[in-house]
Amino acid sequence: MPTPEIAFEARLATTPDHAIERVTAALKAEGFGVLTRIDTHEVFKQKLGIEFRPYTILGACNPALAHRALSQSAAVGLLLPCNVTVEAAGNDSLVRIANPEAMLLAGGMERDPALVELMHEVRARLERVAAALS
Amino acid sequence: MPTPEIAFEARLATTPDHAIERVTAALKAEGFGVLTRIDTHEVFKQKLGIEFRPYTILGACNPALAHRALSQSAAVGLLLPCNVTVEAAGNDSLVRIANPEAMLLAGGMERDPALVELMHEVRARLERVAAALS
Repeated sequence: MPTPEIAFEARLATTPDHAIERVTAALKAEGFGVLTRIDTHEVFKQKLGIEFRPYTILGACNPALAHRALSQSAAVGLLLPCNVTVEAAGNDSLVRIANPEAMLLAGGMERDPALVELMHEVRARLERVAAALS
Repeated sequence: MPTPEIAFEARLATTPDHAIERVTAALKAEGFGVLTRIDTHEVFKQKLGIEFRPYTILGACNPALAHRALSQSAAVGLLLPCNVTVEAAGNDSLVRIANPEAMLLAGGMERDPALVELMHEVRARLERVAAALS
Protein backbone atom coordinates (compact mmCIF):
# COMPACT_ATOMS: atom_id res chain seq x y z
CA MET A 1 0.00 0.00 0.00
CA PRO A 2 1.22 3.58 -0.46
CA THR A 3 2.97 5.20 2.48
CA PRO A 4 0.32 6.97 4.55
CA GLU A 5 0.92 10.50 5.77
CA ILE A 6 2.80 10.39 9.05
CA ALA A 7 0.64 12.95 10.87
CA PHE A 8 -2.38 15.22 10.80
CA GLU A 9 -1.32 18.81 11.26
CA ALA A 10 -2.93 22.01 12.44
CA ARG A 11 -1.36 25.45 12.63
CA LEU A 12 -2.78 27.63 15.40
CA ALA A 13 -2.27 31.37 15.72
CA THR A 14 -1.45 31.12 19.38
CA THR A 15 1.27 30.19 21.87
CA PRO A 16 2.41 26.58 22.38
CA ASP A 17 0.96 26.61 25.91
CA HIS A 18 -2.45 27.58 24.60
CA ALA A 19 -2.17 25.15 21.70
CA ILE A 20 -1.48 22.36 24.22
CA GLU A 21 -4.64 23.34 26.12
CA ARG A 22 -6.68 23.31 22.94
CA VAL A 23 -5.41 20.00 21.64
CA THR A 24 -5.85 18.41 25.07
CA ALA A 25 -9.52 19.48 25.07
CA ALA A 26 -10.03 18.28 21.49
CA LEU A 27 -8.47 14.91 22.34
CA LYS A 28 -10.73 14.59 25.37
CA ALA A 29 -13.79 15.08 23.15
CA GLU A 30 -12.70 11.95 21.22
CA GLY A 31 -12.02 9.93 24.38
CA PHE A 32 -8.24 10.43 24.59
CA GLY A 33 -6.55 11.46 27.81
CA VAL A 34 -3.03 12.92 27.85
CA LEU A 35 -1.01 10.46 29.94
CA THR A 36 2.51 11.73 29.32
CA ARG A 37 4.22 15.01 28.50
CA ILE A 38 7.83 15.70 27.56
CA ASP A 39 8.95 19.29 27.18
CA THR A 40 11.96 18.51 25.01
CA HIS A 41 13.25 22.10 25.18
CA GLU A 42 13.42 21.78 28.98
CA VAL A 43 15.23 18.44 28.70
CA PHE A 44 17.77 19.88 26.26
CA LYS A 45 18.32 22.91 28.48
CA GLN A 46 18.79 20.90 31.65
CA LYS A 47 20.75 17.97 30.26
CA LEU A 48 22.72 19.59 27.43
CA GLY A 49 22.68 23.33 28.19
CA ILE A 50 21.23 23.89 24.71
CA GLU A 51 18.40 26.29 23.85
CA PHE A 52 15.67 24.84 21.63
CA ARG A 53 12.32 26.24 20.52
CA PRO A 54 9.35 25.12 22.58
CA TYR A 55 8.66 21.55 21.47
CA THR A 56 6.39 19.36 23.57
CA ILE A 57 5.53 15.70 23.01
CA LEU A 58 2.20 14.58 24.47
CA GLY A 59 1.21 10.93 24.82
CA ALA A 60 -2.52 10.50 24.20
CA CYS A 61 -4.43 7.34 25.03
CA ASN A 62 -8.02 6.19 24.59
CA PRO A 63 -8.20 3.45 27.23
CA ALA A 64 -10.91 1.36 25.54
CA LEU A 65 -9.16 1.40 22.16
CA ALA A 66 -5.76 0.76 23.76
CA HIS A 67 -7.20 -2.22 25.62
CA ARG A 68 -8.60 -3.66 22.38
CA ALA A 69 -5.26 -3.13 20.62
CA LEU A 70 -3.16 -4.68 23.41
CA SER A 71 -5.56 -7.61 23.69
CA GLN A 72 -5.10 -8.20 19.96
CA SER A 73 -1.29 -7.88 19.98
CA ALA A 74 0.94 -7.38 23.00
CA ALA A 75 3.63 -5.85 20.77
CA VAL A 76 1.38 -2.91 19.93
CA GLY A 77 2.46 -1.32 23.21
CA LEU A 78 5.63 -0.42 21.30
CA LEU A 79 3.46 2.08 19.38
CA LEU A 80 1.48 3.48 22.32
CA PRO A 81 0.52 6.10 23.35
CA CYS A 82 -0.42 8.15 20.28
CA ASN A 83 2.06 10.98 20.00
CA VAL A 84 0.99 14.59 19.59
CA THR A 85 3.72 17.19 19.15
CA VAL A 86 3.25 20.91 19.74
CA GLU A 87 6.01 23.29 18.72
CA ALA A 88 6.57 27.00 18.26
CA ALA A 89 6.50 27.98 14.58
CA GLY A 90 7.17 31.69 14.25
CA ASN A 91 4.27 33.44 15.97
CA ASP A 92 2.11 30.35 15.57
CA SER A 93 2.11 26.85 16.99
CA LEU A 94 2.27 23.72 14.90
CA VAL A 95 0.41 20.64 16.15
CA ARG A 96 1.18 17.22 14.68
CA ILE A 97 -0.96 14.22 15.57
CA ALA A 98 0.66 10.91 14.67
CA ASN A 99 -1.30 8.87 12.13
CA PRO A 100 -1.79 5.44 13.74
CA GLU A 101 -1.99 3.82 10.31
CA ALA A 102 1.52 5.08 9.53
CA MET A 103 2.77 3.87 12.91
CA LEU A 104 1.50 0.36 12.15
CA LEU A 105 4.05 0.12 9.33
CA ALA A 106 6.75 -0.24 11.95
CA GLY A 107 7.82 -3.84 12.00
CA GLY A 108 5.21 -5.01 9.53
CA MET A 109 2.31 -4.73 12.01
CA GLU A 110 0.10 -3.54 9.13
CA ARG A 111 -0.20 -7.22 8.17
CA ASP A 112 -2.59 -7.84 11.10
CA PRO A 113 -6.14 -7.21 9.72
CA ALA A 114 -7.70 -6.76 13.17
CA LEU A 115 -5.13 -4.13 14.12
CA VAL A 116 -5.59 -2.39 10.77
CA GLU A 117 -9.35 -2.21 11.33
CA LEU A 118 -8.82 -0.82 14.83
CA MET A 119 -6.34 1.77 13.57
CA HIS A 120 -8.90 2.93 11.01
CA GLU A 121 -11.12 3.89 13.93
CA VAL A 122 -8.29 5.53 15.86
CA ARG A 123 -7.28 7.40 12.70
CA ALA A 124 -10.81 8.72 12.17
CA ARG A 125 -10.93 10.04 15.72
CA LEU A 126 -7.53 11.71 15.50
CA GLU A 127 -8.38 13.28 12.16
CA ARG A 128 -11.43 14.80 13.83
CA VAL A 129 -9.16 16.16 16.58
CA ALA A 130 -6.97 17.88 13.97
CA ALA A 131 -10.04 19.20 12.13
CA ALA A 132 -11.45 20.61 15.37
CA LEU A 133 -8.28 22.67 15.83
CA SER A 134 -8.28 24.17 12.35
CA MET B 1 14.52 -2.82 2.26
CA PRO B 2 13.20 -5.83 4.21
CA THR B 3 11.02 -5.12 7.22
CA PRO B 4 13.29 -4.84 10.28
CA GLU B 5 12.33 -6.61 13.50
CA ILE B 6 10.06 -4.36 15.53
CA ALA B 7 11.84 -4.85 18.87
CA PHE B 8 14.71 -6.37 20.77
CA GLU B 9 13.42 -8.72 23.43
CA ALA B 10 14.69 -10.12 26.68
CA ARG B 11 12.94 -12.56 29.00
CA LEU B 12 13.86 -12.15 32.65
CA ALA B 13 13.14 -14.67 35.39
CA THR B 14 11.85 -12.00 37.73
CA THR B 15 8.88 -9.77 38.50
CA PRO B 16 7.86 -6.88 36.24
CA ASP B 17 8.83 -4.39 38.98
CA HIS B 18 12.34 -5.80 39.15
CA ALA B 19 12.57 -6.05 35.37
CA ILE B 20 11.69 -2.34 35.16
CA GLU B 21 14.52 -1.58 37.60
CA ARG B 22 16.98 -3.63 35.58
CA VAL B 23 16.04 -2.20 32.19
CA THR B 24 16.12 1.32 33.62
CA ALA B 25 19.69 0.75 34.82
CA ALA B 26 20.73 -0.81 31.51
CA LEU B 27 19.25 2.12 29.59
CA LYS B 28 21.12 4.56 31.84
CA ALA B 29 24.40 2.84 30.98
CA GLU B 30 23.74 3.72 27.32
CA GLY B 31 22.76 7.32 28.08
CA PHE B 32 18.96 6.90 28.09
CA GLY B 33 16.81 8.28 30.86
CA VAL B 34 13.25 7.06 31.45
CA LEU B 35 11.10 10.16 30.98
CA THR B 36 7.63 8.63 30.95
CA ARG B 37 5.87 5.60 32.39
CA ILE B 38 2.39 4.27 31.72
CA ASP B 39 1.15 1.34 33.78
CA THR B 40 -1.50 0.27 31.31
CA HIS B 41 -2.99 -2.28 33.73
CA GLU B 42 -3.65 0.56 36.19
CA VAL B 43 -5.21 2.68 33.44
CA PHE B 44 -7.48 -0.18 32.37
CA LYS B 45 -8.49 -0.88 35.97
CA GLN B 46 -9.26 2.75 36.78
CA LYS B 47 -10.87 3.81 33.51
CA LEU B 48 -12.54 0.58 32.35
CA GLY B 49 -12.80 -1.60 35.48
CA ILE B 50 -10.93 -4.33 33.57
CA GLU B 51 -8.14 -6.51 34.99
CA PHE B 52 -5.07 -6.84 32.76
CA ARG B 53 -1.70 -8.45 33.38
CA PRO B 54 1.06 -6.05 34.47
CA TYR B 55 2.06 -4.20 31.30
CA THR B 56 4.15 -1.05 31.59
CA ILE B 57 5.26 1.26 28.79
CA LEU B 58 8.44 3.25 29.50
CA GLY B 59 9.55 6.19 27.37
CA ALA B 60 13.36 6.27 27.12
CA CYS B 61 15.30 9.24 25.79
CA ASN B 62 18.97 9.95 25.15
CA PRO B 63 18.95 13.77 25.18
CA ALA B 64 21.96 14.25 22.88
CA LEU B 65 20.66 11.81 20.26
CA ALA B 66 17.12 13.19 20.54
CA HIS B 67 18.48 16.71 19.99
CA ARG B 68 20.33 15.60 16.87
CA ALA B 69 17.24 13.82 15.54
CA LEU B 70 14.88 16.75 16.19
CA SER B 71 17.37 19.18 14.69
CA GLN B 72 17.42 17.03 11.56
CA SER B 73 13.65 16.59 11.30
CA ALA B 74 11.01 18.20 13.50
CA ALA B 75 8.57 15.42 12.61
CA VAL B 76 10.75 12.84 14.33
CA GLY B 77 9.17 13.89 17.61
CA LEU B 78 6.24 11.74 16.47
CA LEU B 79 8.50 8.73 17.10
CA LEU B 80 10.01 9.84 20.43
CA PRO B 81 10.70 8.73 23.09
CA CYS B 82 11.90 5.16 22.42
CA ASN B 83 9.33 2.78 23.84
CA VAL B 84 10.26 -0.05 26.18
CA THR B 85 7.48 -2.38 27.30
CA VAL B 86 7.67 -4.64 30.33
CA GLU B 87 4.96 -7.20 30.88
CA ALA B 88 4.26 -10.24 33.03
CA ALA B 89 4.77 -13.49 31.09
CA GLY B 90 3.96 -16.43 33.31
CA ASN B 91 6.51 -16.34 36.14
CA ASP B 92 8.86 -14.27 34.00
CA SER B 93 8.87 -10.77 32.61
CA LEU B 94 9.13 -9.95 28.94
CA VAL B 95 10.97 -6.76 27.96
CA ARG B 96 10.57 -5.34 24.46
CA ILE B 97 12.74 -2.45 23.32
CA ALA B 98 11.43 -0.76 20.17
CA ASN B 99 13.81 -0.92 17.20
CA PRO B 100 14.26 2.70 16.06
CA GLU B 101 14.99 1.53 12.53
CA ALA B 102 11.56 -0.11 12.39
CA MET B 103 9.95 3.03 13.80
CA LEU B 104 11.47 5.11 10.99
CA LEU B 105 9.33 3.20 8.50
CA ALA B 106 6.32 5.11 9.76
CA GLY B 107 5.44 7.73 7.20
CA GLY B 108 8.40 7.02 4.97
CA MET B 109 10.94 8.65 7.29
CA GLU B 110 13.44 5.94 6.35
CA ARG B 111 14.05 7.96 3.17
CA ASP B 112 16.08 10.55 5.14
CA PRO B 113 19.72 9.33 5.06
CA ALA B 114 20.81 11.46 8.04
CA LEU B 115 18.00 10.06 10.18
CA VAL B 116 18.80 6.54 9.06
CA GLU B 117 22.44 6.99 10.07
CA LEU B 118 21.40 8.36 13.45
CA MET B 119 18.98 5.48 14.00
CA HIS B 120 21.79 3.01 13.31
CA GLU B 121 23.54 4.46 16.35
CA VAL B 122 20.41 4.42 18.48
CA ARG B 123 19.71 0.86 17.39
CA ALA B 124 23.22 -0.27 18.38
CA ARG B 125 22.81 1.22 21.84
CA LEU B 126 19.39 -0.31 22.39
CA GLU B 127 20.58 -3.70 21.19
CA ARG B 128 23.30 -3.50 23.84
CA VAL B 129 20.62 -2.72 26.43
CA ALA B 130 18.70 -5.86 25.45
CA ALA B 131 21.91 -7.92 25.47
CA ALA B 132 22.82 -6.63 28.93
CA LEU B 133 19.52 -7.99 30.26
CA SER B 134 19.91 -11.46 28.83
